[in-house]
Amino acid sequence: MTQTRTEILEQPEVLSRVISVNEEVARDCATSIRWSNVKFVLIAARGTSDHAATYAKYLWGAHNRLPVALAAPALHTMYKTPPNLEGALVVGISQSGASTDIVTVIQQAREQGAQTLALTNREESPLAHAAQFVLPLLAGEEKAVAATKTYTAQLACVALLSAILSNDTERLEQLKRIPDAVSQALKLEEKVKDCAERYRYMQSGVVLSRGFNLATASEIALKIKEMSYSHMQPYSTADFMHGPLASIDEGFPVIAVAPRGVLYQNLLESLAKVKERMAELLVISDGDEALALGRLGIRVPPVPEWLSPIVGIIPGQWFALYLALSRGYQPDAPRALNKVTLTV
Amino acid sequence: MTQTRTEILEQPEVLSRVISVNEEVARDCATSIRWSNVKFVLIAARGTSDHAATYAKYLWGAHNRLPVALAAPALHTMYKTPPNLEGALVVGISQSGASTDIVTVIQQAREQGAQTLALTNREESPLAHAAQFVLPLLAGEEKAVAATKTYTAQLACVALLSAILSNDTERLEQLKRIPDAVSQALKLEEKVKDCAERYRYMQSGVVLSRGFNLATASEIALKIKEMSYSHMQPYSTADFMHGPLASIDEGFPVIAVAPRGVLYQNLLESLAKVKERMAELLVISDGDEALALGRLGIRVPPVPEWLSPIVGIIPGQWFALYLALSRGYQPDAPRALNKVTLTV
Repeated sequence: MTQTRTEILEQPEVLSRVISVNEEVARDCATSIRWSNVKFVLIAARGTSDHAATYAKYLWGAHNRLPVALAAPALHTMYKTPPNLEGALVVGISQSGASTDIVTVIQQAREQGAQTLALTNREESPLAHAAQFVLPLLAGEEKAVAATKTYTAQLACVALLSAILSNDTERLEQLKRIPDAVSQALKLEEKVKDCAERYRYMQSGVVLSRGFNLATASEIALKIKEMSYSHMQPYSTADFMHGPLASIDEGFPVIAVAPRGVLYQNLLESLAKVKERMAELLVISDGDEALALGRLGIRVPPVPEWLSPIVGIIPGQWFALYLALSRGYQPDAPRALNKVTLTV
Repeated sequence: MTQTRTEILEQPEVLSRVISVNEEVARDCATSIRWSNVKFVLIAARGTSDHAATYAKYLWGAHNRLPVALAAPALHTMYKTPPNLEGALVVGISQSGASTDIVTVIQQAREQGAQTLALTNREESPLAHAAQFVLPLLAGEEKAVAATKTYTAQLACVALLSAILSNDTERLEQLKRIPDAVSQALKLEEKVKDCAERYRYMQSGVVLSRGFNLATASEIALKIKEMSYSHMQPYSTADFMHGPLASIDEGFPVIAVAPRGVLYQNLLESLAKVKERMAELLVISDGDEALALGRLGIRVPPVPEWLSPIVGIIPGQWFALYLALSRGYQPDAPRALNKVTLTV
């Protein structure tokens, strides 16, 4: 039993907690955003947290009509010329709340009078102290270096704030049912373990999706890099067609996240083109057509498209864990990494 | 003689033209931006053009204090819920000006009353017609599939608008001297050709930089993917420390772009960590310390840091071209790609 597996299995419990406990502070934060006439959002985050930021970029854009920019922390810490943040909501996302660059972005934003929000697992961290509002991840200590339960907790906070900002009680109810769907998805463990075996000697590959699940593709690629060291590169299927498609040849491993929803037909068309190039597809989906395109298919429980990233990452976490174990690696403590990465 | 080589060599001439001819329209555009009290910038672009957008994100942030968001075109074309673009300058960057998704972002922005600007090589394209202001790339027809001269022309337009927006005549003079520095960098052809030989069997690798030159790292990785099919992944050195560092082992190929400037010391520290992991470094720099870290070093002409991406990409273009030729590939027409990629 690895620590990583323990933490992966804790996710339904963490999600239930974070959704119910944070509802009130999310309402306060939403009220403040409405009153301060926020024109755009700037999010500072790195690594796994940056993928929660990618989810926010799509979700807050699609459901809350907020333009979202991902921060360039070097502008704040290195070039010392932070952009003018008048009219912005500035969000810092960090498990540890300790990375200097993320904290600096929030501090400078607050000095400029912008609205500030932190998503962090450490309520006593510098990031939590720097921000006006804090949505705690309530995940308990995360000991494994590769983040799992704090990632889905971050996604849930992003989704919670979205539903509350748009006063959408139906969506809030959908979110409250997500821990059950995650419990279902966790049962894919054995199935994914069997799949992962096949990839024992994979050196590199790509992970594709688009829209809400570009976050999922990015996070699956990072989990595999962190735990099992294969060089996986994530892409939006749209970006993939602008060049990288050329690098695919026969048998090249492609993992695709293709849930049903608005983007489903577009994803199917892109995956058909990838298949024409003779790539080997592993598909994560709740749709028959997408699953039929894959040499291997992993069927996830159906959920509303906007919440599909919280469920779609689960088989990716299992995959990275079991690929690491099949290679004899220790997934809890990957080489070269520490739990808290301090960047300036 | 390949078409790609011909177009690479045209760059000094194209740069001189684009900088001098576009000065007046850049002044008109800057006046309009000032009058309309722009709060933030949204840029829609894909592939190579997206790397020009990355440069704009850092440069317009650092020198013009503008927060820059990279658009998620799927919000406009698929989810049909474009973000509220009040107070925005919305920029579309596309060589062909034909990609439906980029054009749609600009059209919707203009309908919403936002300021709009197009950077395109086709003055009669749908993108040019959709935008209020157009900075033409003036590169002549680009026949090779992999963009080279239109990329540096895009960077020059981004730099020109920045210098004019901040009324900085010294920087404008620095920009006008860039075509000469690019001519100097082009003379690296033989040297880079010799380096590229060594990488004949490279399957995957990473390209690192940070700040202004994250754009350069991304563009070098894409050129190598497009022309010679190796799986190259670009990273900000800061992001690289948050996980992907684990995937590096002995002899793993790392290309680093590390010019002197504000970020130089920080880049040197990151590259030292990569070297500890026994990676094999190829360094592109104008600095002795950075060049000394590499097994191979390519010394580029020194230019002001903010303009270093226009010079730093040149050895990357030569590298991708000669790696393709050493593998017997046809760089002008990579497999699976067309010159104009139409995404929705």
